[in-house]
Amino acid sequence: MGSLTFDNDDENNSYFVTNPLDPKEFRRQGHMIIDFIADYYENIERYQVLSQVEPNYLRKLLPESAPYSPESIETILQDVQKYIIPGITHWQSPKYFAYFPSSGSIAGFLGEMLSTGFNVVGFNWMSSPAATELECIVMDWLGEMLKLPKSFLFSGNGGGVLQGTTCEAILCTLTAARDQMLSQVGREKMEKLVVYGSDQTHSAIQKAAKISGINPMNFRAVKTTKSTSFGLCPKSLRDVVQADAQAGLVPFFLCATVGTTSTNAIDPIGPLCEVAKDYSIWVHVDAAYAGSACICPEFRHFIDGIEGANSFTLNAHKWFFTTLDCCCLWVKDPGTLIKSLSTNPAYLRNKATDSKQVVDYKDWQITLSRRFRAMKLWLVLRSYGVANLRFFLRSHVKMAKLFEELVRLDNRFEVVAPRKFALVCFRVLPKPNVKKVYENDEKALDLERVNKLNQKLLDSINRSGHVYMCPTVVDGEYIIRCAIGATLTEERHVIMAWKVVQEHADALLSRY
Amino acid sequence: MGSLTFDNDDENNSYFVTNPLDPKEFRRQGHMIIDFIADYYENIERYQVLSQVEPNYLRKLLPESAPYSPESIETILQDVQKYIIPGITHWQSPKYFAYFPSSGSIAGFLGEMLSTGFNVVGFNWMSSPAATELECIVMDWLGEMLKLPKSFLFSGNGGGVLQGTTCEAILCTLTAARDQMLSQVGREKMEKLVVYGSDQTHSAIQKAAKISGINPMNFRAVKTTKSTSFGLCPKSLRDVVQADAQAGLVPFFLCATVGTTSTNAIDPIGPLCEVAKDYSIWVHVDAAYAGSACICPEFRHFIDGIEGANSFTLNAHKWFFTTLDCCCLWVKDPGTLIKSLSTNPAYLRNKATDSKQVVDYKDWQITLSRRFRAMKLWLVLRSYGVANLRFFLRSHVKMAKLFEELVRLDNRFEVVAPRKFALVCFRVLPKPNVKKVYENDEKALDLERVNKLNQKLLDSINRSGHVYMCPTVVDGEYIIRCAIGATLTEERHVIMAWKVVQEHADALLSRY
Repeated sequence: MGSLTFDNDDENNSYFVTNPLDPKEFRRQGHMIIDFIADYYENIERYQVLSQVEPNYLRKLLPESAPYSPESIETILQDVQKYIIPGITHWQSPKYFAYFPSSGSIAGFLGEMLSTGFNVVGFNWMSSPAATELECIVMDWLGEMLKLPKSFLFSGNGGGVLQGTTCEAILCTLTAARDQMLSQVGREKMEKLVVYGSDQTHSAIQKAAKISGINPMNFRAVKTTKSTSFGLCPKSLRDVVQADAQAGLVPFFLCATVGTTSTNAIDPIGPLCEVAKDYSIWVHVDAAYAGSACICPEFRHFIDGIEGANSFTLNAHKWFFTTLDCCCLWVKDPGTLIKSLSTNPAYLRNKATDSKQVVDYKDWQITLSRRFRAMKLWLVLRSYGVANLRFFLRSHVKMAKLFEELVRLDNRFEVVAPRKFALVCFRVLPKPNVKKVYENDEKALDLERVNKLNQKLLDSINRSGHVYMCPTVVDGEYIIRCAIGATLTEERHVIMAWKVVQEHADALLSRY
Repeated sequence: MGSLTFDNDDENNSYFVTNPLDPKEFRRQGHMIIDFIADYYENIERYQVLSQVEPNYLRKLLPESAPYSPESIETILQDVQKYIIPGITHWQSPKYFAYFPSSGSIAGFLGEMLSTGFNVVGFNWMSSPAATELECIVMDWLGEMLKLPKSFLFSGNGGGVLQGTTCEAILCTLTAARDQMLSQVGREKMEKLVVYGSDQTHSAIQKAAKISGINPMNFRAVKTTKSTSFGLCPKSLRDVVQADAQAGLVPFFLCATVGTTSTNAIDPIGPLCEVAKDYSIWVHVDAAYAGSACICPEFRHFIDGIEGANSFTLNAHKWFFTTLDCCCLWVKDPGTLIKSLSTNPAYLRNKATDSKQVVDYKDWQITLSRRFRAMKLWLVLRSYGVANLRFFLRSHVKMAKLFEELVRLDNRFEVVAPRKFALVCFRVLPKPNVKKVYENDEKALDLERVNKLNQKLLDSINRSGHVYMCPTVVDGEYIIRCAIGATLTEERHVIMAWKVVQEHADALLSRY
């Protein structure tokens, strides 16, 4: 290597006497951090749920470069407390009602620790058989809990896989569907492929289409209306698909949603699959949030018709007590995924793969390396059991019902979209303006005024740090979303949240 | 909701009295799991490093369905010990020499725990400012440690992002490069786009090209030879690119590798960038494994010329003591990523984004949801400091040198490719056959015989459970790879590993 240059450095230095994975030291520091996190949960209500820091706050507080010499865990934890926690938006806070929940649990946490502790890279069966096999098993378990058709389970020649997020899962299924269609119509039709969703479908689908090379002109966000509670109307879909097909385009992928992000709208899976079938369109059902609820018999009907779909996802890291990230994807025909996503370099060849007796999950996903995610889902399923998981979900729905009732009792407010799970969409709608009959221009002006009022109300609520809710815009209306499901949330927090909303509305409306 | 049906279920059940994130219970179970994992590390040498289970071993041991009622953590941990650990390939074992290391550390583990404990979803700045800001800071820190040109750092209008794996990172840069090129040459040239790598480039690049819709015919794996130690020759690249351009194709992306998976070959970045520049080709440098070593001045020259590239990755979860997953991606022009990957749905709009003063990492990657990965990298950098990180890496290189010397001392073996970092590629090459001069057919026959012998040797070594190494095939030769870098590995393990190889060779050659 010739002469070596060392800058301020000595090859023979050995500041560190302990191995960085020394079990004794691991034990000492590990216990310390458990107490740190337990303390955090104990004190979590004291923190402002939405962080109130200014952009670039942290640059001013941390050194410009990494330290040359080691620092103690005690020092680092002090800095976490002093510098990081104020910059965190506390998703685990019982006063967190924004986006969708990121519902942690002890079981999910322990599972993540075990997976981190083993730190295996489970790209294929061989690289850690237990990681693959446990994943197959828990995906069948959860599939059964959801009463998915057997065709989605390993026992029925389908199968499930744990990916990071729905974005990845959709990109995988979309790629598989694309290649399947291209193999039928010829690669020269690439620019003619068309993807469908509704105007309420998550942005993940449009992004996935773009990444996978679909012509951005060929993404259809079919319009929904209040009359179907913003669900995708099968007739509207058929019209759009028909027009495309007649224009020489090639429809190939539909993302139907059960529980949209904005208002939890439901696309009717069965009838949509009927339309899709006529055009050999791959149907992916995205139940990222609401899918969890379908383990309760009373909610299962929302995914009726799923037997007509090709793939199905739910995020266990949203409303299923499994820490981020853990997206459950089931497909009817894993072969299509494998055809699009498999690789077989020399350094990964092995007897187990050659025997075709095993699942190699690297061929079911974008990435090669993969964590042992099944561990946390297994711990969640076992630690709580079907009974308690249903109980937890129902308790959130019950609290959402309570919040909804409180909104309805105050006639300055309206519930904007029908509540189905644990998300309540509402807005303040000062009475005098509601009753008036407007000309079109005035109506638009009034909508803008009401939107601004709601925006102000939400800003004011969130700035208080007492609760955190999120907005959305549907059909031009600015709406406040209250998503209940943070694990620590109890009835008292929901009542408090409503009081906060009312107080801020009082203050705002007195000046309106 | 009409009449509800309950199957074997009672809406009012409440087996569970404790909240699933109850701090007291968290503390109790958390301490228990720390001890469990510490015990695992203490006993890790006792386990067979490569799991010896048969396909489908776990189905036979676990119940067919998820439990209806909760199970205790004590029961679950017993099952982890009894059913999971035997099915794990112990990547953290000091006797693990396969693939590349998955080098865990206490700091990495603690960082993952904090990140799991906070469980924030950091898609944009707003959703948890500390998660974004700490990531910007540690990426600048690490970029500086690597002496990356300022153009790759936030301070120089570039920037870094933590993704899951190199596969994701390459897909992102490839998509950005694709869209950039298409905006210049027109979308109708989509089918003409060409991607370049060498025949040693990781399969991730071919997979990314396929996912992003590049015509599979347009992936060029430029041939390498032993004469350049399997590095990509700039002249060969220029020839291939030129031929493509003359044929009306559109070259747009090159993946150059520093430290290939098979043999740690080095593509000469500077000269390759010169070629790429003439054709406006985006150059991505994949230093997944070897990049870490470049924090040591004596290894930095391997990435000389990086200033000519567009993007650079290294996996902190490989050889940088940060648990899976943690891929560091730096880009010179984040705007190109953002142009391809941004989305802006109503439910994510916020003032901070509108102010353009903040980074929204969702627009730098495939997925929307993202974990607080910066926490673990920050803890690694601070807990060990530049000094010890260099010390650890050098100690692995030193042990690899020792292993290499041991191989060279035994004249039945040969070191196949020059060792540069901590990977030794070798094979057994029985003497009598080497000296003979062959006709071509005999040579081929002999190669096959030698390959089979090495395959047998490796199988026999790995079946012993005492060490785990991996094969590769380069230029038709079956090679055994010994990758040193598991955190717990000490000199004695390396000496033991060599003894195991020798013993199995003795047994095998006596029958040869």
